Amino acid sequence: MQHDFLKNYKHKTKESRRLYSRAVKVFPGGVSHNIRYFEPYPFFVSGAKGKQLSDVDGNKYTDYWMGHWALILGHSPKVVVNALAEQAKNGILYGTVNGVSVELAETIKKLMPRAEMMRFSSTGSEATMYAIRLARARTGRRIVAKAIGGWHGFNTALMQTVNYPFEEEEGLGLVQDEGQFVESIPFNNLDASLKVLETVKDDLACIIIEPVLGGAGCVPPIDGYLQGLEEFAKKNGSLFILDEIVTGFRLSLHGAASIYGLEPDLFTLGKIAGGGMPIGILCGDKDIMSLADPVARADKESLCAIGGGTFSANPMTMTAGLLTLNFLKENKQQVYSKIDRLGRMARKGLTKLFAESGIPCQVTGEGSMFLTHFSKNVVMDATDIANSNRELLKAYHLALMANHGIFFLPTKMAALSFAHEEGDIKKLLEATKKIIIDSKLFKRFA
Amino acid sequence: MQHDFLKNYKHKTKESRRLYSRAVKVFPGGVSHNIRYFEPYPFFVSGAKGKQLSDVDGNKYTDYWMGHWALILGHSPKVVVNALAEQAKNGILYGTVNGVSVELAETIKKLMPRAEMMRFSSTGSEATMYAIRLARARTGRRIVAKAIGGWHGFNTALMQTVNYPFEEEEGLGLVQDEGQFVESIPFNNLDASLKVLETVKDDLACIIIEPVLGGAGCVPPIDGYLQGLEEFAKKNGSLFILDEIVTGFRLSLHGAASIYGLEPDLFTLGKIAGGGMPIGILCGDKDIMSLADPVARADKESLCAIGGGTFSANPMTMTAGLLTLNFLKENKQQVYSKIDRLGRMARKGLTKLFAESGIPCQVTGEGSMFLTHFSKNVVMDATDIANSNRELLKAYHLALMANHGIFFLPTKMAALSFAHEEGDIKKLLEATKKIIIDSKLFKRFA
Repeated sequence: MQHDFLKNYKHKTKESRRLYSRAVKVFPGGVSHNIRYFEPYPFFVSGAKGKQLSDVDGNKYTDYWMGHWALILGHSPKVVVNALAEQAKNGILYGTVNGVSVELAETIKKLMPRAEMMRFSSTGSEATMYAIRLARARTGRRIVAKAIGGWHGFNTALMQTVNYPFEEEEGLGLVQDEGQFVESIPFNNLDASLKVLETVKDDLACIIIEPVLGGAGCVPPIDGYLQGLEEFAKKNGSLFILDEIVTGFRLSLHGAASIYGLEPDLFTLGKIAGGGMPIGILCGDKDIMSLADPVARADKESLCAIGGGTFSANPMTMTAGLLTLNFLKENKQQVYSKIDRLGRMARKGLTKLFAESGIPCQVTGEGSMFLTHFSKNVVMDATDIANSNRELLKAYHLALMANHGIFFLPTKMAALSFAHEEGDIKKLLEATKKIIIDSKLFKRFA
Repeated sequence: MQHDFLKNYKHKTKESRRLYSRAVKVFPGGVSHNIRYFEPYPFFVSGAKGKQLSDVDGNKYTDYWMGHWALILGHSPKVVVNALAEQAKNGILYGTVNGVSVELAETIKKLMPRAEMMRFSSTGSEATMYAIRLARARTGRRIVAKAIGGWHGFNTALMQTVNYPFEEEEGLGLVQDEGQFVESIPFNNLDASLKVLETVKDDLACIIIEPVLGGAGCVPPIDGYLQGLEEFAKKNGSLFILDEIVTGFRLSLHGAASIYGLEPDLFTLGKIAGGGMPIGILCGDKDIMSLADPVARADKESLCAIGGGTFSANPMTMTAGLLTLNFLKENKQQVYSKIDRLGRMARKGLTKLFAESGIPCQVTGEGSMFLTHFSKNVVMDATDIANSNRELLKAYHLALMANHGIFFLPTKMAALSFAHEEGDIKKLLEATKKIIIDSKLFKRFA
């Protein structure tokens, strides 16, 4: 790939290139998270404020990635920053129970009453791993069903059918026997999904699913799909687990479950819930969660041993999470109507722009989340996304970044924050128009 | 159990009791980490500074738990607190590559040259999970050997033979087939360990081991044990993985590997490396780590897909870690000579005290870590610890907490920090003496 905008990018990011050459000497591929790499090398961030990232070369970017979609109030909102400075003085890691964790849990429970009980961990990968363990403990069954393209973190059990080609192993070092208890179902195809589930129903411990496919590329559910899975699970004595790590507190203060009318047995939260600090939360039905009660079940045979970890419920994360949720509660109307409106504006505007230029494009999304797909077909699942023109999407995102100071993590979904404004969406649309007209990118595809 | 000191504890912790009654309504057992529960209920921490914890009732405790042994500089050291306040203003979660992560990695590599490359994650459980995945990827083999009682976090693969009785499953929800590739060896018994390893050598991907058993109860290795395992692994084409999450930067600035003369292929860090903020690090040989390079190995079949996660390399953790390691480097002599001296003083003093009172007790430890065991036998492995008088140890720790304001997480190892002083050890010894003389605790056992 050699585009003009890449020349421009390299010209503007000399210090990042220098840092990247140091990074590859200490990190495989120069990164600690695979998706953070993009060609020719990622820019190195030196600061972030509101909607903006600054890099080490002094470039500014309007951020549509927003810390893996976690930063609903923007980067470093004052209310969180001040509280973290105070908390740091008063203890970074107590290593013990503390009041602020109780407050955060009670706040979540009030907003999401199905979170009758919960456990805090430090990452989403841990929360989904514990969800599955608890489902197996509860049902005495072994099989976990997940969506093709569904992303639930890097834990071993759920590293199946994540990346295209989905039928192949997710890389080296995963023992096949460990994957034998995962069944994958096609997102948004209820009949085909139920057919698969039917074949394993006697040993089906749970279905775990994102309400909107996130990592796979922003695919909302069609009416009835999630409800159909839930119905099957409940009838079958399997648990229905909703992975709301991305959607919780983003699509609504009460989660995607409230939007889609779902009643999961267990669900996972993360990202927004920690106010930008490391968190994963497993929540749900009291009876099920009680299988993990180390007091009532002191014998190891009767306990489902799920962790929290050294950093679980640490006062920094608890404080950042609590203040973020309190802000969202107090400004609910303002925040969600704004970010949803900006999301609609982006989806509508981009759809119109590409249609007018004769470029087959679909803009998927829900609320404040959106992503463009260059495809003649309707995008309904992870396979459709894998079959869309991903190279073009990458180039489009790189062009936005290099020539217009607009940052999408290339090929990844965008999530808007309360710090974004209408003017930002207008700039995104203008920049996109300019790329369509000026560059040769879309010429071949149109 | 109904001791006088428990009456005193309840009297002094009424607000904690109230908070605990709220906590059990939102958390199974009222905690987010099982080991944080103790009878009759844990006190709720409201602040921490230096060597001291404060609870919600206004009680103060000299802390020997120190945030799961992570806080080598004490709670909220100024250098870290100030930097976190600044960093929070400048970005909590960039979600991108950044310079401070490169600096931290380069600092670690200089201190521990075997960390040729590394990957940052947010918890130790993740780091050990990735270590195993990488070992399997490298060797094409499946079996992982670990020590009986060895603790490597809550990831599914390593949840085997953690708690007594070791031969039983670690609770509900773990699928037996997932555990079939773990073999457990008796710590400190090289012959017996090699015998087990010999039976699985053709499929042995790695041996993963803590240099000092930590969670199981502070058991240092006898001469030749770890070296013998390493030798076997290297001869056999298996990887030798040292889990230095507890010992790294604690036993020495260069890790336990440098003390015991080990050359692990891979090793894990955590705790101290993040300066109190969430971290886990997988480090090691460049060729092995390169299997996780997402740039050179863009096809999923050739890549070992290990994660970092949303919060990996976040600038708050990176900053806290970097400043902590820099402080340790600049004050190396002062810090380690002090904490090791205090550790020796505690071990010697406690050993003498109990011996003089005719109470069979062993104080194990290394450097700044120590733990008492009430046993007539020499404590050499996790089974010996399980067979020691754990109820007495729990009662002793509770008595220290209730009557003397000295906090050990009951039955758990202590780790000293730079904030501790000789006077603290003296107080610990005096308190212990008082408990021996006054209470009926030790009468039956002596």
